[in-house]
Amino acid sequence: MEKKVPVGVSARHIHLSQEHVEILFGKGYQLTEMKPLSQPGQYAANETVSVTGSKGTFPKVRILGPARKATQLEVSQTDSFTLGVKAPVRESGDIKGSAGITIAGPAGEVTIEEGVIVAARHIHFHTSDAERFGIADKSKLRVRVGGERGVVFEHVIARVSDDFALDMHIDTDEANAAGVKNGDIAEIID
Amino acid sequence: MEKKVPVGVSARHIHLSQEHVEILFGKGYQLTEMKPLSQPGQYAANETVSVTGSKGTFPKVRILGPARKATQLEVSQTDSFTLGVKAPVRESGDIKGSAGITIAGPAGEVTIEEGVIVAARHIHFHTSDAERFGIADKSKLRVRVGGERGVVFEHVIARVSDDFALDMHIDTDEANAAGVKNGDIAEIID
Repeated sequence: MEKKVPVGVSARHIHLSQEHVEILFGKGYQLTEMKPLSQPGQYAANETVSVTGSKGTFPKVRILGPARKATQLEVSQTDSFTLGVKAPVRESGDIKGSAGITIAGPAGEVTIEEGVIVAARHIHFHTSDAERFGIADKSKLRVRVGGERGVVFEHVIARVSDDFALDMHIDTDEANAAGVKNGDIAEIID
Repeated sequence: MEKKVPVGVSARHIHLSQEHVEILFGKGYQLTEMKPLSQPGQYAANETVSVTGSKGTFPKVRILGPARKATQLEVSQTDSFTLGVKAPVRESGDIKGSAGITIAGPAGEVTIEEGVIVAARHIHFHTSDAERFGIADKSKLRVRVGGERGVVFEHVIARVSDDFALDMHIDTDEANAAGVKNGDIAEIID
């Protein structure tokens, strides 16, 4: 059985806590939706912030909504060198001891001591997709993508939930190294 | 038999023709050596140039010497998006129909119509290494690199010569996608 999964390329982006939304955009401010993402309920917001590390700044980083419990900036390793931050490769939400950054919005700025990560590549499976493919939550997969720059990504984390839609998330370094773009098809090898 | 090869990560760099060296640095100018590279006779020069595409500029791109027959700028795909150029994935020297760029130095500037490429990943083998590993010139290899971000690169081009030293050349996108750095060890699978 061929196990095919669409690829979603994650450019650098940030998730904000509601507390930080209000520091950056003003008291009581609510993020507004620009467009929905592949995962149900998630959206790209109209709002952006600037982020600044010891070596550089990205002036317009897209916020993904809705607000979360903790602020998390996801960058590629290339981005981390540009910013001058030591961002570890982590699963989303696992930010303990990760890198810090200064975030600025129209109403203020905030410096976080941790929250900057390089997201570990992963595949979101709806429970029904995982059953169909015979894949368990948290298992590590090998996945082939790309054409002339074809690569096999090892240690791809499976994340299974009734709230997920089938999608493989890689960052821009991974996408560019493999010459793939949004909507290309990856194949799970094992 | 394990077939192990050291990894060399190529940051963006440029090779210049002697004609372009003289336009950019002045009539009769000769590049000067800062440090030798892994390949015999090749060196990083003290000199840098700026390169500018439709969307962006890199102000200090290292020149690799000695001067070559044709000018060639090698960038990562991430860099190509920053510059705003459509650089194809090519073997070094295969620049026909590739992207153009404007190059500026202290004495002048030059716009090339072709010469900007994303270098296809490859391994340099001294003839004796290739014989030991049983690998033919121009063959395509699969090569594993990296730890927690481990990847298998497919279509890695073998280049065999008495003038080469054993080294796998990947660009910064590939290195960052795999979490590897200069001097890490890659393993040829087949």
